[in-house]
Amino acid sequence: MTERLLFGPGPSLVTSRVMSALARPVLGHLDPVLLGVMDDLRARLARVCHAPPGSRVFAVSGTGTSAMETSVANLMEPGKKALVVVTGYFGLRLADIARRYGAEVRTVECEWGRAIDPAAVESALSAFPADIVAIVHAETSTGVRNPVREVAALAHARGALVIADCVTSLGGQEVDMAGWGLDVVYSGAQKCLGAPSGLAPIAFAPAALARMVACRSFYFDAALLEDYWAARKYHHTICSSLVFAFHEALVAIEEEGLEARWARHANVHRAFATGLADLGLSLLPPEDERLMTLNAVRIPDGVNDVAVRTALRERFSIEIGAGMGPLGGKIWRIGLMGASATEAHVLTLLGALKLTIAD
Amino acid sequence: MTERLLFGPGPSLVTSRVMSALARPVLGHLDPVLLGVMDDLRARLARVCHAPPGSRVFAVSGTGTSAMETSVANLMEPGKKALVVVTGYFGLRLADIARRYGAEVRTVECEWGRAIDPAAVESALSAFPADIVAIVHAETSTGVRNPVREVAALAHARGALVIADCVTSLGGQEVDMAGWGLDVVYSGAQKCLGAPSGLAPIAFAPAALARMVACRSFYFDAALLEDYWAARKYHHTICSSLVFAFHEALVAIEEEGLEARWARHANVHRAFATGLADLGLSLLPPEDERLMTLNAVRIPDGVNDVAVRTALRERFSIEIGAGMGPLGGKIWRIGLMGASATEAHVLTLLGALKLTIAD
Repeated sequence: MTERLLFGPGPSLVTSRVMSALARPVLGHLDPVLLGVMDDLRARLARVCHAPPGSRVFAVSGTGTSAMETSVANLMEPGKKALVVVTGYFGLRLADIARRYGAEVRTVECEWGRAIDPAAVESALSAFPADIVAIVHAETSTGVRNPVREVAALAHARGALVIADCVTSLGGQEVDMAGWGLDVVYSGAQKCLGAPSGLAPIAFAPAALARMVACRSFYFDAALLEDYWAARKYHHTICSSLVFAFHEALVAIEEEGLEARWARHANVHRAFATGLADLGLSLLPPEDERLMTLNAVRIPDGVNDVAVRTALRERFSIEIGAGMGPLGGKIWRIGLMGASATEAHVLTLLGALKLTIAD
Repeated sequence: MTERLLFGPGPSLVTSRVMSALARPVLGHLDPVLLGVMDDLRARLARVCHAPPGSRVFAVSGTGTSAMETSVANLMEPGKKALVVVTGYFGLRLADIARRYGAEVRTVECEWGRAIDPAAVESALSAFPADIVAIVHAETSTGVRNPVREVAALAHARGALVIADCVTSLGGQEVDMAGWGLDVVYSGAQKCLGAPSGLAPIAFAPAALARMVACRSFYFDAALLEDYWAARKYHHTICSSLVFAFHEALVAIEEEGLEARWARHANVHRAFATGLADLGLSLLPPEDERLMTLNAVRIPDGVNDVAVRTALRERFSIEIGAGMGPLGGKIWRIGLMGASATEAHVLTLLGALKLTIAD
């Protein structure tokens, strides 16, 4: 039985409290006890997202990517124009899925490792009357936080809806769906929210609900999913184990307090960044564009990417992530999210990095 | 913490052995240890399905319905003709999803509670040159086993591919993908296979692989999923907990032996049917059309459906399922699958039914 210190881009470590919930006896998907837990789960999710009143909030029975596809599948179809902000791999994925669902897609891009300049979005919108702007808040491939609040304001000024991918931010740093005017927010359970993967929260604000299309997918059809979560109309056999675990993780989040949790992630990030500097290592994004949850660490010249990751795993049972796409071999992706985000883990990780890089 | 005896249409009871696997420490989706387990899992799945050489076998990160959609999404598109055999709710669902993906759909139907007559399929095929015939092997809504082997032979004689939904049969009664000439077989983890829901196995035979379409879905794209399972190309963050549990369930299946497991399900079904007759209760399908896994029990006149199910749950913590669609209020759906399929459970269940119906 292998046990790892999970400091990659997700999954993060899961507390024993949440693992115990995962191991509760299985219940049927229509059991009144499970339905009660699901009701409470969606109420907690709405609070964690700060979803505006009248939003529909539930979890898709899949990973974060399933929620990404759900956001697109219910808002895009042939004839819809989508502007997708691409600052890394997950922006590319959003654009890919939007095209698959028939939308006319334009992208606005920047160098990987930088946040989008809202002026570039404004310029793109002036040339392309988008129905929807889709943007990744926390770009997991580059460690960058995009200015979704500013982009949402620009989009709304032109009547476009805003989809925000918050897979690597929700529960770890501020996401204010109502305050920032985000029309769809989705995430995954296994990063800052502290549960295993397999349930992916998504929230549709009333403005998005007013512009839903006929969904081509059955599994991702938000109307059917809402009927399932709210009216108990059979749609699929949700995994009670994942529901119990995710619910327990959300209870723990509210016990800690959302703002305290954001502060914990920020403090841990800063401690890690300081320690990295002491080791002569640096982060890819400029300081004010960095995530508090996922750190893109430049691999120093002369250091073997694979050898270091292998040594971390084999000697210390530590997982960190590799770079993706153009950043392959150039960065490590080091997540300190959920239960992984502690000062103690920062010490372990810095010590292990120091020893491993020196070898 | 609620514990139920799960005798509904799924989920079934999960052994403590499998629950222990579920509770193993979380691993990253690219961890070599997890990848090794996934390799072994797909090899075991191929054996359980009896998939022909050259098949692609993996699990979708979703419930059985996600595998149903995966089967359609990779084989149907506008211009494709699909004949869907509808003998209950899940046949209707298959037809719905086929239409969503743009196929021209015809259905061949019969009364709910009966198996399709292969002659009806032959007649439908002579009038409609289908590219694909889709059929539910084990119709969970009616307790009926459809003659997929005979239907597959008819379909192949006309050059059509065959998709077979084996959600409620695989692992509980014979499914012989290679021997019966099924081109796509899918299932769910939570019925006869003995794991929690959340991973859904699917197998594409070479003939299906030769006729795949450009999949519109990203999450269900079989080419991307194969790259993920075989070439480790990132697609989504699979839940290691579900992988461990499902793998352990498959190990247990092969330890028991597939044929012994089918025999266990058949014996338990017969014992239950005999006991039902002693109580004056009867099964909906004719004897030679019945599943060995899921029993559609007629609700006697004068017996209150909801009251009985509620009493079973509240007094005995037993779950059984309600009828669906036109069978709502007319049958109970009683599954004896996986770890739920034991003689001891039959005794418990018959005793509880007797006491509850008498009340």
